[in-house]
Amino acid sequence: MKENYSQWYNDLVVKADLAENSAVRGCMVIKPYGYAIWEKIQAELDRMFKETGHVNAYFPLLIPKSYFSKEASHVEGFAKECAVVTHYRLKNDPNGKGVIVDPEAKLEEELIIRPTSETIIWSTYKNWIQSWRDLPILINQWANVMRWEMRTRLFLRTAEFLWQEGHTAHATMQEAIDETYRMVNVYADFAENYMAVPVIKGHKSENERFAGALDTLCIEALMQDGKALQSGTSHFLGQNFAKAFDVKFADKEGKLDYVWATSWGVSTRLMGALIMAHSDDNGLVLPPKLAPFQVVIVPIYKETQQLDAISEKVKEIIAELKSLGISVKFDNNDAKKPGWKFAEYELKGVPVRLAMGPRDLENGTVEIARRDTLTKEVVPIENIGEYVADLLDAIQKNIYQKAFDYRAEHITKVDSWDEFLDILKNKGGFISAHWDGTPETEQKIKDETKATIRCIPLDAVEEEGKCVYTGNPSNRRVLFAIAY
Amino acid sequence: MKENYSQWYNDLVVKADLAENSAVRGCMVIKPYGYAIWEKIQAELDRMFKETGHVNAYFPLLIPKSYFSKEASHVEGFAKECAVVTHYRLKNDPNGKGVIVDPEAKLEEELIIRPTSETIIWSTYKNWIQSWRDLPILINQWANVMRWEMRTRLFLRTAEFLWQEGHTAHATMQEAIDETYRMVNVYADFAENYMAVPVIKGHKSENERFAGALDTLCIEALMQDGKALQSGTSHFLGQNFAKAFDVKFADKEGKLDYVWATSWGVSTRLMGALIMAHSDDNGLVLPPKLAPFQVVIVPIYKETQQLDAISEKVKEIIAELKSLGISVKFDNNDAKKPGWKFAEYELKGVPVRLAMGPRDLENGTVEIARRDTLTKEVVPIENIGEYVADLLDAIQKNIYQKAFDYRAEHITKVDSWDEFLDILKNKGGFISAHWDGTPETEQKIKDETKATIRCIPLDAVEEEGKCVYTGNPSNRRVLFAIAY
Repeated sequence: MKENYSQWYNDLVVKADLAENSAVRGCMVIKPYGYAIWEKIQAELDRMFKETGHVNAYFPLLIPKSYFSKEASHVEGFAKECAVVTHYRLKNDPNGKGVIVDPEAKLEEELIIRPTSETIIWSTYKNWIQSWRDLPILINQWANVMRWEMRTRLFLRTAEFLWQEGHTAHATMQEAIDETYRMVNVYADFAENYMAVPVIKGHKSENERFAGALDTLCIEALMQDGKALQSGTSHFLGQNFAKAFDVKFADKEGKLDYVWATSWGVSTRLMGALIMAHSDDNGLVLPPKLAPFQVVIVPIYKETQQLDAISEKVKEIIAELKSLGISVKFDNNDAKKPGWKFAEYELKGVPVRLAMGPRDLENGTVEIARRDTLTKEVVPIENIGEYVADLLDAIQKNIYQKAFDYRAEHITKVDSWDEFLDILKNKGGFISAHWDGTPETEQKIKDETKATIRCIPLDAVEEEGKCVYTGNPSNRRVLFAIAY
Repeated sequence: MKENYSQWYNDLVVKADLAENSAVRGCMVIKPYGYAIWEKIQAELDRMFKETGHVNAYFPLLIPKSYFSKEASHVEGFAKECAVVTHYRLKNDPNGKGVIVDPEAKLEEELIIRPTSETIIWSTYKNWIQSWRDLPILINQWANVMRWEMRTRLFLRTAEFLWQEGHTAHATMQEAIDETYRMVNVYADFAENYMAVPVIKGHKSENERFAGALDTLCIEALMQDGKALQSGTSHFLGQNFAKAFDVKFADKEGKLDYVWATSWGVSTRLMGALIMAHSDDNGLVLPPKLAPFQVVIVPIYKETQQLDAISEKVKEIIAELKSLGISVKFDNNDAKKPGWKFAEYELKGVPVRLAMGPRDLENGTVEIARRDTLTKEVVPIENIGEYVADLLDAIQKNIYQKAFDYRAEHITKVDSWDEFLDILKNKGGFISAHWDGTPETEQKIKDETKATIRCIPLDAVEEEGKCVYTGNPSNRRVLFAIAY
């Protein structure tokens, strides 16, 4: 991990059976173990969205090309990197070699595989919204999207990825702004309390804003190599898309006005954040709340008879754990040795491992190992359920705290350009510095150092200062970092 | 419904807020209420798949064109109706009119939006399977797929649709065949016990078999207009895809052999079956087990004070219902009259409606209406939870029984061609008739009547007979019908 973080990451994703590259450039296969984590992420987020009043729906995969021209800045941001459907039929090659595209089946208007769905959704909302009674619309969609990225990395940046995208419509600007904040708070809550990844909430600078948004809020996480990872965004879209698609509503006085909009999303990129924030040279470290199974039980035996006796006891333990809502796998596969299994479940980040041999059976004990600290102890079987439940809580808290401490050590206040360059090169992490507020300065800093403004933190304090690059006046610090 | 079934169906789907056509030809928007039913369907099926040992994964949306040529019959079945991605970039029109496809961004090999995923999945399995230890693979995928249908109908036949597709790999033929049966049984169980739709399990004839399968099992349901609807299929693929993608495994003796395969799927088409099997002229009739909310409570009042008193009591009822796992909505929207609400929730098929007015409050009663029979009664509030729970069970059973009885009346044994034509024209439903077993005869019958063999039922009894069309010998009856 220390030697070559990037290689370590790629290897881990593949070795832990999370995902792999497919035959289609830039598209990944999410393998069952990786997908099981994604399902946990989905289930929790979906619950949180519903608790905040949202419902799910589904909109088409394909978007007419002309829709992308309707919102000026949106087309600049997205249209350049899209998969384009031009034909709707194949036919047998007259030369007998496989199939070819049927030239007669050319579409009148090309269709784009959605890179994001604002355009198709707002063209639909136009028919759903006439008056204030139809508002708000609070819809989320779970879907696949596609952006033709040139350099891809499993989970972090792939051509196709899975995500959710919320698209809401409101009668007032304030209501839309409140929604934008509500959802960035949901994301932060999820990241911190489920993924155990501390995040900083803030505004994006103009350069980093979503194409078509008036304001983009985001959560930014710090990985163990000192790079930042944007983990979720929530956009206040103003009336831009309503104007582009002519979506007006009559207010209580009958006056027509354009509808106010937000959109917000997180994606399978969160898997990348989860992996990079906690894992180590032995493999994944999963937070108990998102682990496909929280406990694995490995029997230690020489003869089948011993296995039978152990299995009997293990059955009781499993029943006790399950009654407490703890998910557990009993690996009694006879073809693998315990040592192999220990390494395998460490690699896969299973939070707690129980091992039970004949001596444990005699003594009424079990060996319990925790993945986060790699420590072991022998404990009585009595009350094992409660013991494991407490341990899972402790692990969830511990890995959050570890990530929090790492981040705290890696937010550095910087007041000169030399120091900025030094920290960036030798320490990494977030740099808290003054900035003159101009896109030009941000661009120059990016060109010179690759660092970008990750966010202007929501809790940034007013403070007189001078821009670290130009010396021009600034009234709050922003966070710079090299980002994924 | 009786006058114009097709129009009734389309109107119902739109009016009940289930789905609507989108701006993209043949692609639908699934609206929140429709999607909530789909989520219920997904949750139950997903649970059943997991209980039978399956795990979820995700494979790419796009498939290289050449993959479709690898399995000969598969290409015939699918390649003709696919969306083809040929380019990966748009650019600003030099004439300043929106965006155009960048001719320089042409793909070397075209990519097809998956119509089904056998090819991309088996090209992946090739890398996952070396020995018998790697088998079986029991994977399911929830995904969107696309088939360029010329005539589309909401839910029943759309260009893009949502589905699940299971793809399993086995060491032996028998194991794969067992899996094929296991999954058609899961589908039948789901259709009958959750959707309340009785189905007939059977084999497809050669003509109707999946492109690339050696055997296709299916469940066939009957709609209220006497047409059949194929509602799920489970395919025994033999070694066809293993051979096409060169997927071999070493058995316990080290001998190499091709892997055996199955695939199986159900789609948003089930929504069409659900709607058409039970609904009536007042709107949807939903089985309680799949209703987004099972109970709606409507307050009847003139003054706000009355509403407050009613709301207090309703709170208790809601708590009682929820404690029994019953989902409930309290519609206290002041802008709508009770009569409007009654009609609205009938249209949306909510199984049970409770209405409570000031007199009910005095008497400790509530008016309870069931959607399936449209009957009402006044019952004591005491023990209302148990009463509603029993009623929901009764409704679930009743709508199944109603559909079962309708189907029983609409399976007609036929032994002559004249009778075949008469029943088809004047009664509809399934026709149980002898067939000589040849694709030619089936095709001729289809050309003359549009009727196809829906299935050769799994429980068909051996019985000597003569083909209803050719008079040639036959040893079991098959089921014909006009199908969706």
